[in-house]
Amino acid sequence: MSAALIAALKTRFDARVSTAAAVREQHGRGEAYHPTKAPDVVVFATSTQEVSEIVRMCAAEGAPIVAFGAGTSLEGHVCALQGGVCIDLSRMNEIVELNVEDLDVTVQAGVTRKQLNAYLRDQGLFFPVDPGADATIGGMAATRASGTNAVRYGTMRENVLSLTVVLADGRIIRTRSRARKSSAGYDLTALFVGAEGTLGIITEVTLRLQGIPENMTSAVCPYPSVEAAIEAVIETIQTGIPVARIEIMDAVTVAAVNAYSKLNLEARPTLFYEFHGSAAGAAEQAQRAQEIAAGHGGEDFRWASDPAERARLWEARHNIHYATLAMRPGAKSWGTDVCVPISKLAEMLRESRKDNEGASFPVTLVGHVGDGNFHHGYIIDPDNAAEMAEAERLNKRLVERAIALGGTCTGEHGVGYGKIKFMRAEHGEAIEVMKTIKRALDPQGLMNPGKVLPD
Amino acid sequence: MSAALIAALKTRFDARVSTAAAVREQHGRGEAYHPTKAPDVVVFATSTQEVSEIVRMCAAEGAPIVAFGAGTSLEGHVCALQGGVCIDLSRMNEIVELNVEDLDVTVQAGVTRKQLNAYLRDQGLFFPVDPGADATIGGMAATRASGTNAVRYGTMRENVLSLTVVLADGRIIRTRSRARKSSAGYDLTALFVGAEGTLGIITEVTLRLQGIPENMTSAVCPYPSVEAAIEAVIETIQTGIPVARIEIMDAVTVAAVNAYSKLNLEARPTLFYEFHGSAAGAAEQAQRAQEIAAGHGGEDFRWASDPAERARLWEARHNIHYATLAMRPGAKSWGTDVCVPISKLAEMLRESRKDNEGASFPVTLVGHVGDGNFHHGYIIDPDNAAEMAEAERLNKRLVERAIALGGTCTGEHGVGYGKIKFMRAEHGEAIEVMKTIKRALDPQGLMNPGKVLPD
Repeated sequence: MSAALIAALKTRFDARVSTAAAVREQHGRGEAYHPTKAPDVVVFATSTQEVSEIVRMCAAEGAPIVAFGAGTSLEGHVCALQGGVCIDLSRMNEIVELNVEDLDVTVQAGVTRKQLNAYLRDQGLFFPVDPGADATIGGMAATRASGTNAVRYGTMRENVLSLTVVLADGRIIRTRSRARKSSAGYDLTALFVGAEGTLGIITEVTLRLQGIPENMTSAVCPYPSVEAAIEAVIETIQTGIPVARIEIMDAVTVAAVNAYSKLNLEARPTLFYEFHGSAAGAAEQAQRAQEIAAGHGGEDFRWASDPAERARLWEARHNIHYATLAMRPGAKSWGTDVCVPISKLAEMLRESRKDNEGASFPVTLVGHVGDGNFHHGYIIDPDNAAEMAEAERLNKRLVERAIALGGTCTGEHGVGYGKIKFMRAEHGEAIEVMKTIKRALDPQGLMNPGKVLPD
Repeated sequence: MSAALIAALKTRFDARVSTAAAVREQHGRGEAYHPTKAPDVVVFATSTQEVSEIVRMCAAEGAPIVAFGAGTSLEGHVCALQGGVCIDLSRMNEIVELNVEDLDVTVQAGVTRKQLNAYLRDQGLFFPVDPGADATIGGMAATRASGTNAVRYGTMRENVLSLTVVLADGRIIRTRSRARKSSAGYDLTALFVGAEGTLGIITEVTLRLQGIPENMTSAVCPYPSVEAAIEAVIETIQTGIPVARIEIMDAVTVAAVNAYSKLNLEARPTLFYEFHGSAAGAAEQAQRAQEIAAGHGGEDFRWASDPAERARLWEARHNIHYATLAMRPGAKSWGTDVCVPISKLAEMLRESRKDNEGASFPVTLVGHVGDGNFHHGYIIDPDNAAEMAEAERLNKRLVERAIALGGTCTGEHGVGYGKIKFMRAEHGEAIEVMKTIKRALDPQGLMNPGKVLPD
């Protein structure tokens, strides 16, 4: 990109513009195995108006634009494949407006989920969407993120009410009112949620909130096999028990968690549960889940509503990434992310675990199985070309099987540039509709180029 | 449109093509007060493939295309403003695939909601979205419909998993897989839901289903004023009671319901409730709602889980349209449809009821108040120009106030051509984004022209 544009940005934004190698490098990098490509320059924006100005300057010069939040993405979303300008939104971290009666809040894109929940706690409210990382709300909206609570509370798709977006030509729009329901025109909110910054930059997000339940009860139950655990999950969901969380780990992963988080779980395939409601309601849910577990060989169903024990359990769950890395010092984790209809989950896991049996590196399993979404972790040495090729091959097989079973290549991580190669197989002709929309809203192709859509 | 196209359609589709005046007339008409404009020809399609063929023939000739389901829309959606071809989808009424374990079903667009629920009952499942009319699932998706259950189960936005859509050039796409969650690309499902046939024609719909709750308990409670009832609603929602339904009626409307449905409700502002759960869970919810009611002057909170009594109550609720028409024989009802954040609901209703006080016709009030959505019914003589002008004026005032309070001109009825005049005020610059998308996906402007978007 042109030196003139960098100079103009420095004139306008002063010390908030950086071309330092370390800063650029950090802004081209997510948390996964993808090769990094640094942007030419990073600008730290502090308002929607500033983002609009930067975008106008880039549009005039034809410079690529990549938005950056916390840098926790997993498919190379922030990698500046064509260089250009990275707009860092992390300083846009204000809570703009909390409406307690309406159970909604508007935040700037750079607010993180933990920051938001710390702010909400005193009001008796919480925001349920919880990817592992402490991602920004803007990044979570852009990737249509979810996490362990989605089975009960939905993903970013269901929990974003409205957005402020800067378009590719710098215009600023509000996608929707704050009303709970509306039939007034096209659903622009949903169009920008999950578009990964390729259609515009999300600068503010209005979210639906939940009251903190009167009671939260957790449970752990080991099963004789992964298949038995999946059968229990299906029956639990189908019976209509409104589980807040229902998560699987296989024996290898439980062992890693025990070692890392100092727990004494049995090293068997295990379900973690959480139930939200009144004290009586949560207990009734746990009771019914326990009965179902027993019918599938899960005899040792242990539940607790003690907050300390509950916190210890879920902290261990959220630290799985680090627990599995500790299995092989110096390694990285390649996290897969398929999601299938839950009736296909047992078949899916049976086949993929067969594929993984001969792998030359450890493979873990965790999953938001109430939604049919799970992650294998390939614990690899990224500098070992043979291991990378093997991981690539296993992941391809996994994704192709998921698509053949009516599922998706990514349940919650997004496409970035890591999953583009599967998009045609998953969507067929619908990809052409996405490309038509992309061309219409970003005719110069400057917004996060090389992401989401194949050429 | 050209006689050649009509002839070609007759050659291809034979007796399933009609140019009879009565058939055409019926296909240009919804259930509201809007002037009717008949299409030039009606074709009864029986498959997605046929819809694609018809669309290709129309595209080649530049003929406008309007999709038609049950004809129950309320904002002139099916009115053939520019003539052209009406594609009647009502014969596409097959249940394509039920997946009990996955709690989803795929249906052709012409299946109605009552037909679907009759089909699902034996499986212990139901589809919760319930507009008053027995609309088609395709029409409900196209207008982003909702109803009394939305406060708990969401609208069509949340309950449509995937669509088959015929595009403006006849191509057929599937918008998404059947997976519960996906972050794989743009949310085309949400784009076509609520687009009212202006971007493409929905021919198949995959829906999320719910298990029929173990227990459903209803309640009725009269309040000293509309304001007191609204305060009770806000507290009920905020406390996190997962009400399945919470509906308001004012005293005038209760009187009309008593007369029409032979009930003996007190003619006061009244809330209808419904609670879903286990027997103990539903009772606990009702108990807590009752306590809240008492705190707002709702002392006479009566609840029942007897199925016959419950059915009688909700049948009366669903027949409100006819009950209010019976207040003034020969009249029509102009149903308003604003939706505001619930913190603004009391103010909104206070002001609008002040406006309505001097009206020269009866005005009713019913509402899905848990979502902030309510309907005034102006019970008018549509042949009386002065009454029409007065209704127009009252509705305009109502909508402008709702938008000023952060709400929307339509919570669930859609835009059609009745609400286009409010779209710029509600959306500002975002309207231009909608128009850009419309031009990109329907460059000839043939799909349901004159609907949703202002010129």
